[in-house]
Amino acid sequence: MLWREELGRHLRRLELAIEDISVGKLSGAVGTYQHLDREVEQQVCARLGLRPAPVSNQIVQRDRHAFFVNVMALIGATLEKIATEIRHLQRTEVLEAEEYFSRGQKGSSAMPHKRNPVNSERICGLARLLRGYAVTAYENVALWHERDISHSSAERVILPDACIVLDFIISECYRLIEKLVVYPDQMRRNLELTQGLIFSQEVLLSLIAKGLTREQAYQLVQKQALAAWENRTDFKTLLQSDPEISAYLTPTEIESLFDYNKIRQRIEPIFEQLLAEE
Amino acid sequence: MLWREELGRHLRRLELAIEDISVGKLSGAVGTYQHLDREVEQQVCARLGLRPAPVSNQIVQRDRHAFFVNVMALIGATLEKIATEIRHLQRTEVLEAEEYFSRGQKGSSAMPHKRNPVNSERICGLARLLRGYAVTAYENVALWHERDISHSSAERVILPDACIVLDFIISECYRLIEKLVVYPDQMRRNLELTQGLIFSQEVLLSLIAKGLTREQAYQLVQKQALAAWENRTDFKTLLQSDPEISAYLTPTEIESLFDYNKIRQRIEPIFEQLLAEE
Amino acid sequence: MLWREELGRHLRRLELAIEDISVGKLSGAVGTYQHLDREVEQQVCARLGLRPAPVSNQIVQRDRHAFFVNVMALIGATLEKIATEIRHLQRTEVLEAEEYFSRGQKGSSAMPHKRNPVNSERICGLARLLRGYAVTAYENVALWHERDISHSSAERVILPDACIVLDFIISECYRLIEKLVVYPDQMRRNLELTQGLIFSQEVLLSLIAKGLTREQAYQLVQKQALAAWENRTDFKTLLQSDPEISAYLTPTEIESLFDYNKIRQRIEPIFEQLLAEE
Amino acid sequence: MLWREELGRHLRRLELAIEDISVGKLSGAVGTYQHLDREVEQQVCARLGLRPAPVSNQIVQRDRHAFFVNVMALIGATLEKIATEIRHLQRTEVLEAEEYFSRGQKGSSAMPHKRNPVNSERICGLARLLRGYAVTAYENVALWHERDISHSSAERVILPDACIVLDFIISECYRLIEKLVVYPDQMRRNLELTQGLIFSQEVLLSLIAKGLTREQAYQLVQKQALAAWENRTDFKTLLQSDPEISAYLTPTEIESLFDYNKIRQRIEPIFEQLLAEE
Repeated sequence: MLWREELGRHLRRLELAIEDISVGKLSGAVGTYQHLDREVEQQVCARLGLRPAPVSNQIVQRDRHAFFVNVMALIGATLEKIATEIRHLQRTEVLEAEEYFSRGQKGSSAMPHKRNPVNSERICGLARLLRGYAVTAYENVALWHERDISHSSAERVILPDACIVLDFIISECYRLIEKLVVYPDQMRRNLELTQGLIFSQEVLLSLIAKGLTREQAYQLVQKQALAAWENRTDFKTLLQSDPEISAYLTPTEIESLFDYNKIRQRIEPIFEQLLAEE
Repeated sequence: MLWREELGRHLRRLELAIEDISVGKLSGAVGTYQHLDREVEQQVCARLGLRPAPVSNQIVQRDRHAFFVNVMALIGATLEKIATEIRHLQRTEVLEAEEYFSRGQKGSSAMPHKRNPVNSERICGLARLLRGYAVTAYENVALWHERDISHSSAERVILPDACIVLDFIISECYRLIEKLVVYPDQMRRNLELTQGLIFSQEVLLSLIAKGLTREQAYQLVQKQALAAWENRTDFKTLLQSDPEISAYLTPTEIESLFDYNKIRQRIEPIFEQLLAEE
Repeated sequence: MLWREELGRHLRRLELAIEDISVGKLSGAVGTYQHLDREVEQQVCARLGLRPAPVSNQIVQRDRHAFFVNVMALIGATLEKIATEIRHLQRTEVLEAEEYFSRGQKGSSAMPHKRNPVNSERICGLARLLRGYAVTAYENVALWHERDISHSSAERVILPDACIVLDFIISECYRLIEKLVVYPDQMRRNLELTQGLIFSQEVLLSLIAKGLTREQAYQLVQKQALAAWENRTDFKTLLQSDPEISAYLTPTEIESLFDYNKIRQRIEPIFEQLLAEE
Repeated sequence: MLWREELGRHLRRLELAIEDISVGKLSGAVGTYQHLDREVEQQVCARLGLRPAPVSNQIVQRDRHAFFVNVMALIGATLEKIATEIRHLQRTEVLEAEEYFSRGQKGSSAMPHKRNPVNSERICGLARLLRGYAVTAYENVALWHERDISHSSAERVILPDACIVLDFIISECYRLIEKLVVYPDQMRRNLELTQGLIFSQEVLLSLIAKGLTREQAYQLVQKQALAAWENRTDFKTLLQSDPEISAYLTPTEIESLFDYNKIRQRIEPIFEQLLAEE
């Protein structure tokens, strides 16, 4: 849902950027329409799906193109964020999800067992390329007398290349998500790696509700949390056998705090509301 | 008018960026509202003039901040464009405009005659700083599991500093333009430096209208244009005494091509239309 | 050893950058020594621990400063690489190392069990800041007539801030490494997570040595490697019971391929050689 | 001479960068030489004109490549500085130098008289491209576990493209300088545009030598300097007829301060020393 909302924001930015860049000009060498009526500009632009720039000189001003390239780089950064997530989830030690790996595919020429997140890594690398193009696009804005031609050589590279790279990583990302292999059991196992520590905040807040100050409660909970972590023992059991904590919470009360369902109890409305907005 | 339109585009971008960034979250450590009702988030955000982020995890996603910093850097690039224009116009050899220089002000500690475009140069330098911050902001988007805290240390510097720097150069630019000293006579003198060459396109098009091909016309005009430039002689006179050109254009016809009014004849409608749109 | 060698390269780069930047000038407003003898420049620079710039105009050329800031950003990128390594090793699911966490320290205000890699994350964030400054420093090189003053406003921020930030993250990194808690047992456990798959290349090469083509061997090994991974079964056992593989390798031969010592057999000379070079 | 010294600095940086990047590795997938003797690596590298990396893992570390790309971007910034100088000198109003313009060349398709500094503008644009690549190269340093493959996709673009672009603008710049047309008379005319104001520091220092404080002298000189500038009258004449100044300097003394030779009197030793160092 985070991805979906973020991509929605990018769509609005991209619409504005495309609107900004969809202009043309036939206003002559200094923008005065000395040798051509504005109607000609209007017609030529219309044929190209462009609006005439409301005012121009020798060129269309480059803040438009810089904004466009920057929005592309920003979309790239989000795709990198998604790819970074997959790369983490695909680590051998985490393994909560994997890029689809077709039969017969080679993961690594030297190591027959490897299944690297190659698409995700490629998306990350190419997102860096887009950020580099964005830097170049910025520097093209402050032209001499608002119209020197120094931007031209750089734009011949960055405009097509940025569009191609973004198009490519969007489609890479699309395929990546479409075919992503997800391992819910492993997600559960990883949650449980913490010996129940993910419920520490529940315990903290319960102790506060029972009258302890936040500081006192924090100290009590942290002590057992660190013990659970360092000795790889069950957090709940440690809490239940701690006399100081037992003075405030019964074993049954403690038991009731370790509840996955409570974590999820307010998630549904988020989804419902966002999907309803469509 | 170019500046005004460009700043108008920035206003639209900035509005979108401010809308994007004006969100808060009190959804807990993983965005599940486990310990707090969404109504609390709603009320707290409202008090701060924010909307609740429609979905969040530990943090508000950083594409929002990156977009904001990038729009600020883009506005900086336009201010740099304006300042670059002033710096060019203030050159000793050009001198079509100057930053206001108050009585008693020192232009240079060593050289009592100097009046440097100090404000414009400062705007240019600080615009570069904004571009640097934008690079940093981009890299803050792809956080681990969409919520590590690595962006925090960088944002403590770039968010306040970028806002302060942009605010400062906007007000610098405002004062710069408000008090700008303009020298129209010198503009005319500089136009005339070219010995009339700025009308070369008029002559070119007239010859084409008389039946010459573009290539033929170009060659004839370029020959006299280069001669005028190299020998610092009057372009019109050279054209009038060129037998090949005289075969197509009478001296009176040539005379009529050198007309400043014709350059400006279609300028008014541009201003009228843009001002009417307000 | 990778870190040590890389830091050694940075030392050489930094020495060159510091040499480049350690110059001064008292050559007058256009570098002609019109009002001051070069001997004065020599003496003043010597007092400041600088050499006189061999040639200058109004300023010392900014390629020197840009190189310095860029070397600092590059060092920052290496510190980020080191911090990224720690962040990975400290993941709950990996846990091969941890930042030192003192008794009484709070890992997270909401979650008493948390021990985040806060120093490493901070290093990563601040390294991004250095890269932003490097972008600004580059743009300060191409000054008008090699001496406008536009760089000055930007350098007042980036030169001190870059030095402070780099100094800070170097000392952060130093403390991080000095007190790093390392878990060798967990390293071994993580290695073994792969069910012996890390020896797949050994098996591949053995089969090739026995006369199979690389393609054939790859297919045989990959088949059992994927089976081992998908079913979480022991790779060695699968290989030993594969009839096609058994045609080339006896169970004892396969057994001998799964040898941690062999992986390390040529490591010592690398260390010895590099340490001897000192 | 500034250019020559600066390019000399770049040569030293480039030598270091090329040394850093001229390494190879055949140390296996984790850098342990498990399946290959170091002697093989030595021989293969030698054939390729490389040294073996003293230590490696799956890859050669990317600080090497980032440093190389950054030095290239820095060289590009100097070429842009040179090109910026030419662009300024070629302005119609300045015209102290021009790019060579061959007979038959077209300066502008629409305007037959135009001779734009096209090569210089192209160098400036492409230098921006190099800075973008440098940003990408930085981000390739902090790879996961010092060896993920995300840099690969980006480097396939930036390494060849950066080398090609730098090679191209070096040769462009070479041709530019080799054939540059210089107008010394126009340089003199531009100097004289200031009505003698460039000697204001001479006058300032003379008055101080006669016993005035710097403040007093500055005020006296600035007053006449501004009058000379605003009324386009001769600075020397104004000084000679100023009674306050005349109390300290005779007309002959003032006359002697306006001496172009004095400006140049200490220039020769700079050239001699630098050329002797070769």
